[in-house]
Amino acid sequence: MTTIALISDFGYRDAYVGIMKAVIHGITPGCELIDLCHEVPAHNVMSGSYLVASAVPYLPTGAVVLGVVDPGVGTRRRCIAVRTENRMFVGPDNGLFHMAYEWEAPLEAVELTNPEYHLARISKTFHGRDIFSPVAAHLAAGVDFSKLGEPIDTESLVRLPEIGPIIKEHGIESSIVHIDHFGNVVTNLSREVLEAAGKVPKWVRIGEHRAVFAETFADVSKNDPVAYFNSTDFLEVGIRNGSAAEQLQLKQRRMIHLEVE
Amino acid sequence: MTTIALISDFGYRDAYVGIMKAVIHGITPGCELIDLCHEVPAHNVMSGSYLVASAVPYLPTGAVVLGVVDPGVGTRRRCIAVRTENRMFVGPDNGLFHMAYEWEAPLEAVELTNPEYHLARISKTFHGRDIFSPVAAHLAAGVDFSKLGEPIDTESLVRLPEIGPIIKEHGIESSIVHIDHFGNVVTNLSREVLEAAGKVPKWVRIGEHRAVFAETFADVSKNDPVAYFNSTDFLEVGIRNGSAAEQLQLKQRRMIHLEVE
Amino acid sequence: MTTIALISDFGYRDAYVGIMKAVIHGITPGCELIDLCHEVPAHNVMSGSYLVASAVPYLPTGAVVLGVVDPGVGTRRRCIAVRTENRMFVGPDNGLFHMAYEWEAPLEAVELTNPEYHLARISKTFHGRDIFSPVAAHLAAGVDFSKLGEPIDTESLVRLPEIGPIIKEHGIESSIVHIDHFGNVVTNLSREVLEAAGKVPKWVRIGEHRAVFAETFADVSKNDPVAYFNSTDFLEVGIRNGSAAEQLQLKQRRMIHLEVE
Repeated sequence: MTTIALISDFGYRDAYVGIMKAVIHGITPGCELIDLCHEVPAHNVMSGSYLVASAVPYLPTGAVVLGVVDPGVGTRRRCIAVRTENRMFVGPDNGLFHMAYEWEAPLEAVELTNPEYHLARISKTFHGRDIFSPVAAHLAAGVDFSKLGEPIDTESLVRLPEIGPIIKEHGIESSIVHIDHFGNVVTNLSREVLEAAGKVPKWVRIGEHRAVFAETFADVSKNDPVAYFNSTDFLEVGIRNGSAAEQLQLKQRRMIHLEVE
Repeated sequence: MTTIALISDFGYRDAYVGIMKAVIHGITPGCELIDLCHEVPAHNVMSGSYLVASAVPYLPTGAVVLGVVDPGVGTRRRCIAVRTENRMFVGPDNGLFHMAYEWEAPLEAVELTNPEYHLARISKTFHGRDIFSPVAAHLAAGVDFSKLGEPIDTESLVRLPEIGPIIKEHGIESSIVHIDHFGNVVTNLSREVLEAAGKVPKWVRIGEHRAVFAETFADVSKNDPVAYFNSTDFLEVGIRNGSAAEQLQLKQRRMIHLEVE
Repeated sequence: MTTIALISDFGYRDAYVGIMKAVIHGITPGCELIDLCHEVPAHNVMSGSYLVASAVPYLPTGAVVLGVVDPGVGTRRRCIAVRTENRMFVGPDNGLFHMAYEWEAPLEAVELTNPEYHLARISKTFHGRDIFSPVAAHLAAGVDFSKLGEPIDTESLVRLPEIGPIIKEHGIESSIVHIDHFGNVVTNLSREVLEAAGKVPKWVRIGEHRAVFAETFADVSKNDPVAYFNSTDFLEVGIRNGSAAEQLQLKQRRMIHLEVE
């Protein structure tokens, strides 16, 4: 029984997600569906990419990630499936799976050109329903990856624009890629990159604010800002029992400066 | 393994939906549950009706739609089940399934008067838990439709008040039935009705604004309004990378004028 | 096939809930997952406790409740599992299951000290993923309760601070424990407690407002406040087709005075 993990920016006010699941159940009854997130901010491929990456290591082997954050639907952006050692990814070719590729390198990719695995009629605005869901369902049902369409070079897959982290002698510049439900802000600096650079974190500077670096926000007093590696091992800034995004007025793409020794 | 598709205005701040699922699992373990939407605007039967209709063609044959947008709970409105050729519908008799009947005509209907298929104790405020969920679960488990209660005339089922579309020589008046997560506004004019009237769409007029008619919003520039048939084949007005509802100040029930030739 | 019912304050903007489900599916494929609620107000253990209690009587026998409203994550609060006659509870020891214990008394409790049933690496901030989800999954898979860790005295389990109801000769003071999606406010006064006290409800006083006591809000005119026992049999104040929380400016923990004879 294969797992399909769904992520989108469709929100919960419509039946879009439910319709995708109906299509999947029609093709692969009994398939396990997991909602990763459907409130990715509208058209925000970078947030989506972080959220996919945060979940991938916990997905069962063989799981299919079905991602639909797709501002380019109806334009000529490619529809793709990507195979890594342990999972498969189905969605638009726009960088949505970029951060996941850091954990699991793409081994094989196809453009979804074989209409046999799509719905009979393709709308202009809902490829999640008409192309991506049926393809994910067929993959979960065991259809051979190579049958989905034309092979493409994995080097040609769209990546997110490079936005750091930039490592300097006494500091690292990283960029906010996601803001979570509690107002914690997540940057694109992973513990792995910091350790590979042989740096030891001291504190984080955000405009006139300074956040101590600690193990977790339980290490500081209430309402104090604190920087730590989050549960996905990326640098995050939070405020104990408060919202860092609000109180420090932080937005996505804003740069965060980490002082290091 | 039958599918039950749930739709309600219960939102996500409470355990109402989870409790309905618990009741269903207690009666029919292993039944497949799909959430169509639980953020139908509170008491908004019209939005709910559109969302049900948008999903029905994609539900597996034999699926049961369990709908609870029920401002009349505790009053004398009827509790009903309706059978069409391919699906069954369970919920209050208030028009919630009206637009779905356009795809699939009711063949048979019952009022849910048989307490054998309800919970032992019926609250005044939560028939979703006490009546509709157990009935849907028993239907999914294969209970005979006619056992659920007294047969009723399908002509007597409550419909939404008629609100167009009104077809004139050079224009069609249609009414906004739903506003989606992205701010796209959906009208009740279907492609089918337009084609049956032999009309060709030119543009949409909304107060002083004018939206071109196109295949999809990818056909216009950013921030331009555009009208198109959406993925459910209803006339929709959107703004590329923006919210039509906000920028054009559109609300449900507002009329939209489509110029045609 | 055991059911796991999930409740948290993780919201829907992140992949936290999806990641917990991925962990569970990895350990117990085919286990039935029910979302009770993931929009418990952030860190609001009292709302969470009410929501758990409202769902428990409807969960299948043997179900596991996995609760993560956990403001103390990373501090020394205990991680626990509790067994009652018909269900099991897994989460932080902070009162989240307090109101459920009123329906089903704890028979046995353990502190989750056995790392064999946790993920290999435990983060400081996401015990929902690293400890509670794997423990719940192992319980659902049939692991013996006593293997999870050291037994603890059920009397030592953390309870919510006592906040009534306080029964007087002509009135009962109760406290608002939850505000639902429709703006109905729920108090901690149960029908059972009222009846045990031999009192008959007359009306509710809230500042200068007075709400009649009735069977349900369908018994009053639109926009009139009304008090009734809700579908969980707790005293609730609502406004027909309106929001009591907004119109009467009610907040959690505020006291509600019920006049009785």
